Amino acid sequence: MKRSRLSVALILVAVLVGAPLAAPSQTPANGAELQIRAVLEAQVAAWNLGDIPAYMEGYWKSEKLVFAGATGVTRGWQATLERYQRTYPNRAAMGALAFSDLETTILSADSAFVLGRWHLKRGGSASASPPDVGGVFSLVVRRLPEGWRIIADHTSVVQ
Amino acid sequence: MKRSRLSVALILVAVLVGAPLAAPSQTPANGAELQIRAVLEAQVAAWNLGDIPAYMEGYWKSEKLVFAGATGVTRGWQATLERYQRTYPNRAAMGALAFSDLETTILSADSAFVLGRWHLKRGGSASASPPDVGGVFSLVVRRLPEGWRIIADHTSVVQ
Repeated sequence: MKRSRLSVALILVAVLVGAPLAAPSQTPANGAELQIRAVLEAQVAAWNLGDIPAYMEGYWKSEKLVFAGATGVTRGWQATLERYQRTYPNRAAMGALAFSDLETTILSADSAFVLGRWHLKRGGSASASPPDVGGVFSLVVRRLPEGWRIIADHTSVVQ
Repeated sequence: MKRSRLSVALILVAVLVGAPLAAPSQTPANGAELQIRAVLEAQVAAWNLGDIPAYMEGYWKSEKLVFAGATGVTRGWQATLERYQRTYPNRAAMGALAFSDLETTILSADSAFVLGRWHLKRGGSASASPPDVGGVFSLVVRRLPEGWRIIADHTSVVQ
């Protein structure tokens, strides 16, 4: 009897935990959201391997790419790559990147807006590394022939 | 003869200068762009009358409005209004607002992205007013039943 109750409890837990996975009415909207999230996750993975060019694969490879922030507007994929390389010249400066609180707003079949937080865990005062840094970003992403890509990035450091 | 050459030259100038005005193939896209620009111009006019609530009419009157920047993310129309009122408590702090370098990217029939620069001309050191301030902004705008409205604003101060 005890055992049977335990089984029922376990099944209930399994059903409840499994519920979100079991009912993925995969609408185009959340399909897009998952694809966009995968692009951002690939960026994080590339960054954390120290590979800025691979990180840059998430961006539209165009002269029309815009990257805005407290230093103004950087235009074009190549200039944005070089800005990243200048700002983060080595692994200690790059630290370990994490994105959080991602919120995707689907605007159309081929465009979306993503708001999120970024954080670079660096050595800080315990080492020769610079301190942690982070903030918020707003991305406009578009579905291009090569996949979803960031066409505009506005990033702020939040103290 | 001299006069005739001058006339031809003047006509050429008139045609060349007039050309962009004479060929406004008013596509839906540039119609949207003009409407979005009008919303932003109304914001500037309201600001320069010292009327922050009227300036706020350009924003989506929703709890889902997001305003991002170096202080993080402010959520909702009311909180954004209060943030503006806190940051710009009087006419000297508000200064005279100007937008420039507006670039609109139409994303769909009812959504667009606007990149631009903002500048507040204030009294500066010649008076009791704070110094000028300005920077860049990225807006996501949507066509709602009430018209085009900003649904997300990411604003940075550029030193």
